[in-house]
Amino acid sequence: MHRLLILSRHADDYRVLVQAANLPNLTVWAATDPATADIPVADCDMVLGEPSLVCRVLPRMDSLRWVQSTWAGVEPLLDPALRQDYILTNARGVFGGLMTEYVFGYLLAHERRIIKRHAEQTAGKWDNALPGTLNGKTLGLMGVGSIGACLARTARHFNMTVKGYTRKSETCTDVDVYYHGSGLPDFVADLDYLVSVLPNTAETRRIVDAALLNALPQQAVFINVGRGGAVDETALAHALKAGRIAGAVLDVFQTEPLPPEHILWHAPNVQITCHTAAPSFPRDIVRVFIDNYRLLLRGEPLRYPVDFERGY
Amino acid sequence: MHRLLILSRHADDYRVLVQAANLPNLTVWAATDPATADIPVADCDMVLGEPSLVCRVLPRMDSLRWVQSTWAGVEPLLDPALRQDYILTNARGVFGGLMTEYVFGYLLAHERRIIKRHAEQTAGKWDNALPGTLNGKTLGLMGVGSIGACLARTARHFNMTVKGYTRKSETCTDVDVYYHGSGLPDFVADLDYLVSVLPNTAETRRIVDAALLNALPQQAVFINVGRGGAVDETALAHALKAGRIAGAVLDVFQTEPLPPEHILWHAPNVQITCHTAAPSFPRDIVRVFIDNYRLLLRGEPLRYPVDFERGY
Repeated sequence: MHRLLILSRHADDYRVLVQAANLPNLTVWAATDPATADIPVADCDMVLGEPSLVCRVLPRMDSLRWVQSTWAGVEPLLDPALRQDYILTNARGVFGGLMTEYVFGYLLAHERRIIKRHAEQTAGKWDNALPGTLNGKTLGLMGVGSIGACLARTARHFNMTVKGYTRKSETCTDVDVYYHGSGLPDFVADLDYLVSVLPNTAETRRIVDAALLNALPQQAVFINVGRGGAVDETALAHALKAGRIAGAVLDVFQTEPLPPEHILWHAPNVQITCHTAAPSFPRDIVRVFIDNYRLLLRGEPLRYPVDFERGY
Repeated sequence: MHRLLILSRHADDYRVLVQAANLPNLTVWAATDPATADIPVADCDMVLGEPSLVCRVLPRMDSLRWVQSTWAGVEPLLDPALRQDYILTNARGVFGGLMTEYVFGYLLAHERRIIKRHAEQTAGKWDNALPGTLNGKTLGLMGVGSIGACLARTARHFNMTVKGYTRKSETCTDVDVYYHGSGLPDFVADLDYLVSVLPNTAETRRIVDAALLNALPQQAVFINVGRGGAVDETALAHALKAGRIAGAVLDVFQTEPLPPEHILWHAPNVQITCHTAAPSFPRDIVRVFIDNYRLLLRGEPLRYPVDFERGY
């Protein structure tokens, strides 16, 4: 018998969804708080949960074998002080559609001047300035995993050119040209849109810095749907204030919620959203858990394993 | 030798583009004003121009054979008092991409609350309300010509269900289910988005009326990128004020520019744009003219002929 501990703000939703799947040999406990007293944590061999909660029960889990993260980002579990003697899988393959709607919503809003037009309308002005178009524009993707591939496919749908910057993979056929390593300046030199889907790792930390922002064309808009750690936020705020880039759309930050006094709140041409680009909806995430549970029962490798060294 | 009269606010752009094509047997005159004195209007056998300008020279065109409209809508040329003894072709096949960017820009802005989130940001608020998604929503298209087909294709890309309302055609395979004639209430009954691409004809006049707006679900948003004549604007303003539908995105109106005192300026949840959804860019329109000119030289039927009776 496997014993699953669910640890999530949506613990009840997850429990209902997992139990509805009638998985064999599975007993389920669910809690919103890791300190909940009446759960046999030491006996549970698997966890489905939010990394920020899961990290707090790790020391007590004597039977732990597998953690399925409900998030894509698993930073709280990567602390070298924490144990790494279990299989960690994250949530992937479910965020691409939502991320794509977010990114292309803001790309089209930029071309169509949706926010500016609304301000003109509020002032009662008939604003017949011509719109721009995505057709023929160039999108640069930093990170081309499953989310990047969805973004690339939609960019092609809108007849854009797609450039990709990756560690080494070149598997997505919707990317027109790939760059790696020191190719970053060439990668960004002619972009209209730069989208970071990068996770927070030692390699990506502050990769979007003053030098990279300076290498972008002035018409470029930067979009961050990866992790805030990949961006030098002070350099970004200065680039926006100086008009060196045309705008930024930011869903993730080094500190969330973004502190009230943060410089980015008052930078020009920035759209701030609050880590809502691709929410972890339990109905989506539970499918990843169920598929992995079935693989585990069959003794097969789980999907979306996280490499503790690489950090994703 | 054919003699072409170009009549457009962008006459110079059109002349440069037409002359760059080196079309055989063609002499070109270009004017922004139909009253320009030094053009041999009576000798010109073809016109490339804006219908609102072309209608003013029709009586003087003794040799007229063909008018290529630079617009999709040709209402000014349909006045029964005007001659109809020539071939009228309109601009089609060039607006689909632009219309699609407009419509999906506003659909995604609605799901993502882009304008509301921007207001929260301006107030310094960390607004982590969850977004909606187009995935699984239902789009209804009134009119499924070349523009409607582009919209349907993109709706499918975003995993939406597509319903189509047409006179009788059912040719677009991206439409899941078609409705005609009296099927209008069934067509709109479960829509999340209703998009009118309808031209202004006797059949379409005020087809979007109080009854149809009442038949829409309360969560529905109405988008008009066709012609203003298809909508009862007073009924629409009342439906918005009463909250009977969730919003409207309007690019066209019965009178343009929309008069300052018009009720729609102050209706809630309405986005007003100024007939800019799909501008006639000369570089796009001139390709339609060139293709048709070559067909004419070969004695073949021209593309996109307008039926004066039907009005499109």
